[in-house]
Amino acid sequence: MNSKLETQVKNICQQARAASLSLATLPTASKDNFLINLAKRLQESEATIIAENAKDLQAATESGLSQAMVERLMLNSARIQAMAEGVLAVAALADPVGEQIEQLQPPRGFDLRKVRVPIGVIGIIYESRPNVTIDCAILCLKSGNACILRGGREAFHSNRCLGAIIKQTLVESGIDPFAVQLIPTTERAALGVLLQQDDTVRCIIPRGGEGLIRFVVEHSRIPVIKHYTGVCSVYVDAAADPHKAESIVLNAKCQRPSVCNAAENLLIHADAAALLPRLAKALYDRGVELRVDAHAAAILGGSGVPYGAATEADWSTEYNDLIISIAIVADTPSAIAFINRHGSGHSDAIVTEDPAAAQAFLAGVDASTVYHNASTRFTDGFEFGMGAEIGISTDRLHARGPMGLRELCTYKFVVHGRGEIRE
Amino acid sequence: MNSKLETQVKNICQQARAASLSLATLPTASKDNFLINLAKRLQESEATIIAENAKDLQAATESGLSQAMVERLMLNSARIQAMAEGVLAVAALADPVGEQIEQLQPPRGFDLRKVRVPIGVIGIIYESRPNVTIDCAILCLKSGNACILRGGREAFHSNRCLGAIIKQTLVESGIDPFAVQLIPTTERAALGVLLQQDDTVRCIIPRGGEGLIRFVVEHSRIPVIKHYTGVCSVYVDAAADPHKAESIVLNAKCQRPSVCNAAENLLIHADAAALLPRLAKALYDRGVELRVDAHAAAILGGSGVPYGAATEADWSTEYNDLIISIAIVADTPSAIAFINRHGSGHSDAIVTEDPAAAQAFLAGVDASTVYHNASTRFTDGFEFGMGAEIGISTDRLHARGPMGLRELCTYKFVVHGRGEIRE
Repeated sequence: MNSKLETQVKNICQQARAASLSLATLPTASKDNFLINLAKRLQESEATIIAENAKDLQAATESGLSQAMVERLMLNSARIQAMAEGVLAVAALADPVGEQIEQLQPPRGFDLRKVRVPIGVIGIIYESRPNVTIDCAILCLKSGNACILRGGREAFHSNRCLGAIIKQTLVESGIDPFAVQLIPTTERAALGVLLQQDDTVRCIIPRGGEGLIRFVVEHSRIPVIKHYTGVCSVYVDAAADPHKAESIVLNAKCQRPSVCNAAENLLIHADAAALLPRLAKALYDRGVELRVDAHAAAILGGSGVPYGAATEADWSTEYNDLIISIAIVADTPSAIAFINRHGSGHSDAIVTEDPAAAQAFLAGVDASTVYHNASTRFTDGFEFGMGAEIGISTDRLHARGPMGLRELCTYKFVVHGRGEIRE
Repeated sequence: MNSKLETQVKNICQQARAASLSLATLPTASKDNFLINLAKRLQESEATIIAENAKDLQAATESGLSQAMVERLMLNSARIQAMAEGVLAVAALADPVGEQIEQLQPPRGFDLRKVRVPIGVIGIIYESRPNVTIDCAILCLKSGNACILRGGREAFHSNRCLGAIIKQTLVESGIDPFAVQLIPTTERAALGVLLQQDDTVRCIIPRGGEGLIRFVVEHSRIPVIKHYTGVCSVYVDAAADPHKAESIVLNAKCQRPSVCNAAENLLIHADAAALLPRLAKALYDRGVELRVDAHAAAILGGSGVPYGAATEADWSTEYNDLIISIAIVADTPSAIAFINRHGSGHSDAIVTEDPAAAQAFLAGVDASTVYHNASTRFTDGFEFGMGAEIGISTDRLHARGPMGLRELCTYKFVVHGRGEIRE
């Protein structure tokens, strides 16, 4: 361990902790003033941002990064404008800090309330897209949290430039400049040190590929909120409306196959198996590859729609692509058991006109979001009306599903007494 | 690694996961029926429990365990009766599962609710007192969770006996017997395996000494909810009512000094320093040792009350004993900064008649519970009206402060649509 690096990271964490204590009681107007200033600074700094981003793009091209990755990395005028608009949108959201969550009824009768407060210091580990730097900084700041950002090597210059703009705006807005800090190196050892600072950093949010997330979980002494995979299913029940079934299956699979809330598995009740040829053709016509179980293969045999055989691994695979696995199930309990066995607990849907089947599915499927007659594609902070999203948790503790400003908070119990003592 | 042990622990976890899926939709009446049967079984099994407990007591005495530890380990008729009554009290509590937490307003207008559901499988690692086995089992079951219990070596026979009674009662109540399981060995390697099973176990709650808790945090891949230390402070403000100050300080320090919500530090505003001699004498008269800063020493000099000098380490020490550290602070912001620096974020109180000072303290102190004119001793699930408590969290994520049945739950988003798809 490089002890200079260790000291540097520890200092960042201690400065963030100190900043978090002042952020916790910062008035909403001060936070919103910072956000409005930041939006302006981003627009004014367009040329500088694009110039710094160009260095990352060149390095990415030279190191042979895929075209898709380079595209994700790229910042242009439109994207910088979108960032600035995103900052103003967060300024317009309600401040979660200080909201009363619950009033309790303690037997001794003192006034006891559960009040929303910031978590403190949040560490965010991410890859690739530099706009995540702005997103995370503004969501943490609006929720009263200090943050420590550790972006990927590939966006180093872009992130450094955005970090400097944030710092300058914090200073000119009268906020502790340590409220938002970037780890100034991409050495992995620095990440290792960060993940051990559980006396100052209260939460780690990793955003990126499964390898990065598993590394963080393995090495962190700090609680982690994470998103592993999105293996989502649509179940077409015996009592499904055929039009809703087709529309929901096509939307869940095809509207944006690369995202976590797209469907990977299609389950069909044996009594609705007659719907399969039509669903299969509609999927195939949109370019979807079909991988099916033996029962589905028997039905599709004479239909003229091409398909392959699904393997056991297919049922738990997040394709992020125009591929779908299809199984025929005996009944709703079988569909529930299938999803609880193979799914990732993200988002699963039932299509049915039978309220009892819907109720059994919604109660029995162990996922962050369960849908009755709607596409899985709605699992998203904006679509849920949260106004923002820092990620989607596939964990159970603290936050599950889309995480907005409230999910970046914890609570404290506040007691107003009249001299009460315990007997 | 002993691969037989590894297989055994993994099997326990997988059986618990399967049981958790059936528990999640178990009707309240079935859970309460189990609890009522368990209370009866415990009363009927008194002789057996006492005989098994005697083996642990004998081993404890032979191995030279302290008298206090032996006392904690001991089960007698009155304690078994108290256990049975505790079980009935949990049966009488409201079922948290299925409670609607929030109705959201998604822009697309589908019906979106956040509903309380069990976490799944909870692992609880604890030491010493065998009644914890019953406590944890019933709180997890009532909240719809399967649990895996790993008690201490010193209570091995008592825990095994209680585990067998729980299992028999699960079977006769028609509930999956794997809903509550004990790790059948006290080998530390088994704990190591358990802490890696993050595909089946969703939460680990360690209850015990700081050494055990640090081991669990260090080795767990599963999210941990923990209680480190209780370094609590009482701050007597310039505008304190002297009678309330004395009553609250004495209660917070002396009523039960061995517990986590007892006070360790007394801070006094410089303008209220005249109260110090009286407070010091009252504490001393109740057998409390005083460790004071230079300013307090100057005031106490001629008072005749004995005191020693506090060291830097004293301010962050949980004495669990009749010892108190006393500092004079310049003002309320200094008191807040002192507590945020030295306290453990558990419970802190201000005594004042000044609403502005109270407000600043309640907002500025970063603790699970902040008190205005009441003793810190109330931080407790029963005193908060939760009806039960599985522990007190000093973490920020998921649960902070006393944890009752609701804190043993997570939530899911439930969507009722009319065929909505994402554009």
